Amino acid sequence: MTDGLNMSRRIRRTPYTDRVEQVGVRGFSVVNHMLLPKAFQSTIEEDYWHLREHVQVWDVSCQRQVQITGLDAERLVQSMTPRSIAKAKVGDCYYIPIVDQQGGMINDPVMLKIADDQFWLSIADSDVLLYAMGLAIGANLDVEIAEPDVSPLAVQGPKAEDLMVSVFGEGIRDVGFFKYARFEFKGTQQVIARSGYSRQGGFEIYLDDGLLGHDLWDTIWEAGQTFNITPGCPNLIERIEGGLFSYGNEMTRENNPLELGLEKFCTLDGSIDFIGQRALQVIDAKGVDRSIRGLQFDGPRAPTCSVPWPVTVGGHQVGQITSCIWSPRLETNVGLSFIDRGYWDIGQNIQIEMPDNQICRGEIVALPML
Amino acid sequence: MTDGLNMSRRIRRTPYTDRVEQVGVRGFSVVNHMLLPKAFQSTIEEDYWHLREHVQVWDVSCQRQVQITGLDAERLVQSMTPRSIAKAKVGDCYYIPIVDQQGGMINDPVMLKIADDQFWLSIADSDVLLYAMGLAIGANLDVEIAEPDVSPLAVQGPKAEDLMVSVFGEGIRDVGFFKYARFEFKGTQQVIARSGYSRQGGFEIYLDDGLLGHDLWDTIWEAGQTFNITPGCPNLIERIEGGLFSYGNEMTRENNPLELGLEKFCTLDGSIDFIGQRALQVIDAKGVDRSIRGLQFDGPRAPTCSVPWPVTVGGHQVGQITSCIWSPRLETNVGLSFIDRGYWDIGQNIQIEMPDNQICRGEIVALPML
Repeated sequence: MTDGLNMSRRIRRTPYTDRVEQVGVRGFSVVNHMLLPKAFQSTIEEDYWHLREHVQVWDVSCQRQVQITGLDAERLVQSMTPRSIAKAKVGDCYYIPIVDQQGGMINDPVMLKIADDQFWLSIADSDVLLYAMGLAIGANLDVEIAEPDVSPLAVQGPKAEDLMVSVFGEGIRDVGFFKYARFEFKGTQQVIARSGYSRQGGFEIYLDDGLLGHDLWDTIWEAGQTFNITPGCPNLIERIEGGLFSYGNEMTRENNPLELGLEKFCTLDGSIDFIGQRALQVIDAKGVDRSIRGLQFDGPRAPTCSVPWPVTVGGHQVGQITSCIWSPRLETNVGLSFIDRGYWDIGQNIQIEMPDNQICRGEIVALPML
Repeated sequence: MTDGLNMSRRIRRTPYTDRVEQVGVRGFSVVNHMLLPKAFQSTIEEDYWHLREHVQVWDVSCQRQVQITGLDAERLVQSMTPRSIAKAKVGDCYYIPIVDQQGGMINDPVMLKIADDQFWLSIADSDVLLYAMGLAIGANLDVEIAEPDVSPLAVQGPKAEDLMVSVFGEGIRDVGFFKYARFEFKGTQQVIARSGYSRQGGFEIYLDDGLLGHDLWDTIWEAGQTFNITPGCPNLIERIEGGLFSYGNEMTRENNPLELGLEKFCTLDGSIDFIGQRALQVIDAKGVDRSIRGLQFDGPRAPTCSVPWPVTVGGHQVGQITSCIWSPRLETNVGLSFIDRGYWDIGQNIQIEMPDNQICRGEIVALPML
């Protein structure tokens, strides 16, 4: 339908875009005003199998860092999230929902504690920097807020650890899940975390200095030849099966972290101070009206879902599918949907109203889909 | 190079996207997490000539409205911009730079004063809603901030007025430049402004209720047949010649409104209270170090400029081109660049370093390019 994304300076290239083009990128998306590769020469199904068996390098520079520094840095970050960050140590990565006064999701970044007075928020697709800046100016906080020249490169898949060891040394094995450490690269010290937007294991290199982008890509690419590396990107099949949600797809400001199943990241006992606390306490006391669930359903291979499709039980709408695709492993369509209370049990039969009035039968399944 | 923009719910469709697809859209960009059509069947040069002679309908729903309502609404909006809004009346549209504490551009929306206690900011590509929300929460202001279901449809070109009159009546002729009034459509009252992102004249219909999108598009489309209407979008040739700047292309937070030539929208005498005032006063007292200019240059037809190209004088870099294209009317390449002090006079000879080490000769010209 389209000839492509029209390029301009407004949609920023990354330190790796030249290389991504050289290895045959076929399409991009836009996240945080920056290019995110979305397709290479192979099909999404081939990429899926490859990601589960080998290793891929992903340009995820669009996960921009919001750097908050200063005497009030911890106070500002805590004010933005219901997750207590009081016990976070330098070297920790925390997944933190950011919510508005109604408890609605503004973003769901990974927070890296860089120093006692410095945090990075590795953000999904909304301008958290402007929100944090507004809060800081409005409340006259003692912080500096900036977007540093940091461009994450992800190395994902079961062979990621061995590949990373071959480049950065055995110390890589000691980096715990959702922890980071600093490793030497070309005379610089770079943050490397055991994290990433897949369930296949791997690392994210928070490259600080875009001028090193070609060097880093080339180093990973060359070392990766032994491990059957390919260029890749977040894989829709893998992330749906893995129950990894996408800001803007599964969640918007219309959704709160409790209905997203993030209650373990919500401290609602009044022991911390954050925006939206009262709203979340009310929702928690009442119980949520809907909850996110995995779905599987028959029928033809699902097309791309750019408009939510109704999920019904007995002709009554109980949800809407926000992401779905055919899984070649499970040999069924897989999707994610909020489902209303009363219909959200695992095993519940449902129907999906796809475009062209096609009705598909399915059921609610546990996440992740094993 | 690309197969297209990957579609997902995160990149929102508009009330007109179905229709835009029916009339053969060939590419999209993404602005404010929403689709902006960027190409149809015809070439950008055909579109350019057509826009100057006839009338086009543009889906500019991505110009989202940040609606600020409440006792402190005017105070909050004023705090965000160096332009005094004290004399704005209901029915006025104001182009307002929004700047940070350093005077850097955060956005450059059109403000519509909807009521004494309600404003719409019709924004370029950054999440002003989150910034305003942060300011309001931080300073505990009495405002509500929301993104209403308002999706602008632009009607641009010299025949726009006659077309709009044929749909909405003679009252359209009384709407002044950068003013709006309300007109009846299908039993609703809709805001229509004499404005738009071209120099060819026209209107923007701020359709309030996405469910009316198909009706509005069809009504304009059918009435437009008499006027040789085509689907269109902001035209790069026309906007460069017209000196219309694009947030993210010509300006980022690295730029201040004074170097953008927006001093007439900056009240720096202390009579109003806004964020960044001290920084702009310092810049104003010192004089700006660079200023935005139009350029024309020879050589082959310029390719798309997604990485800024150096502008040099005698081997010394004095600027960088942020947008450029071949003008079939002026029969030369046209572009926009900040130019350092000392080199910014009209008629200054310059060189452009295009990709592949191609050097083109050119000069600085007045804007708009007549």
